[in-house]
Amino acid sequence: MTSPGSHTLRFELREGDEEAVRAIVESTDFFSPAEINIAVELVQERRAKGDASGYHFVFLDEVHAGRTRTLGYACYGPIDGTLSSYDLYWIAVADSLRGRGLGRVLLQESERRIAAAGGQRIYVDTSSRATYVPTRAFYERSGYLQEALLADFYAPGDGKVIFCKVVGN
Amino acid sequence: MTSPGSHTLRFELREGDEEAVRAIVESTDFFSPAEINIAVELVQERRAKGDASGYHFVFLDEVHAGRTRTLGYACYGPIDGTLSSYDLYWIAVADSLRGRGLGRVLLQESERRIAAAGGQRIYVDTSSRATYVPTRAFYERSGYLQEALLADFYAPGDGKVIFCKVVGN
Repeated sequence: MTSPGSHTLRFELREGDEEAVRAIVESTDFFSPAEINIAVELVQERRAKGDASGYHFVFLDEVHAGRTRTLGYACYGPIDGTLSSYDLYWIAVADSLRGRGLGRVLLQESERRIAAAGGQRIYVDTSSRATYVPTRAFYERSGYLQEALLADFYAPGDGKVIFCKVVGN
Repeated sequence: MTSPGSHTLRFELREGDEEAVRAIVESTDFFSPAEINIAVELVQERRAKGDASGYHFVFLDEVHAGRTRTLGYACYGPIDGTLSSYDLYWIAVADSLRGRGLGRVLLQESERRIAAAGGQRIYVDTSSRATYVPTRAFYERSGYLQEALLADFYAPGDGKVIFCKVVGN
């Protein structure tokens, strides 16, 4: 057992974030290889283009004995063609650390930053499948309301649930 | 008055499509400068990457006295992360030619090609604003059902309406 290090939030990329994101997303067992590649590509886009990529990140790091380990992250961005709507693209925490409220920390910090940037509505897509009951409960506990269900969107029997939370003024 | 030339459908890009798409989309008065740029960028993406761009086009040309004029077009593509869902990104006809059923020709050809490619569900987003009553009526007449309304999505008072049509088997 190691004693916990201090947790810090970080908003700029550091070296190795591609590998950290891949490891975190893989660990959850929630995503297909294609989805995992997309998660990594968003980091690469951010690295190549900065804010112009449209992808913003919140990383949750643990600093312990001089070493930094990334425990989870969120990725969000403004939705093109909208005045002040944002998509929360990803939020994931290393599987071994689930149940400690780290997802909530990442979500609340993302919401705070979106509101500070003038965002007013945050949208999250998730699946209607039973596997995602805890995911949907997480958003509901966090004040998100289901705005739509697109039946069979991802595949037969696998619909898209669209959640929304109003933030800012 | 010129006599009408013959109408032909075309699926590969030709030189000048960027300008043709810009002129068509501008003529409708429905789109912002940012949206018009996006329409042109999709043509550029298609030209650079072909099918790998994820953007497929149907152009409706009029050939008259040896000259080709593009009257309208549609752009669609598979939705990443779904088994067989497609987005219809754009469908537009030169404003001077509205009311002749050309939009319907473009829509039906797009649907036919999506079904032939294995697509099963076609999604179209549009605005809830009054300006788009004819647009929504066009989709409803064409067998699309409203699956969702995301209130205030684009801006306060400007929601997103998501239509869906099931095609193929």
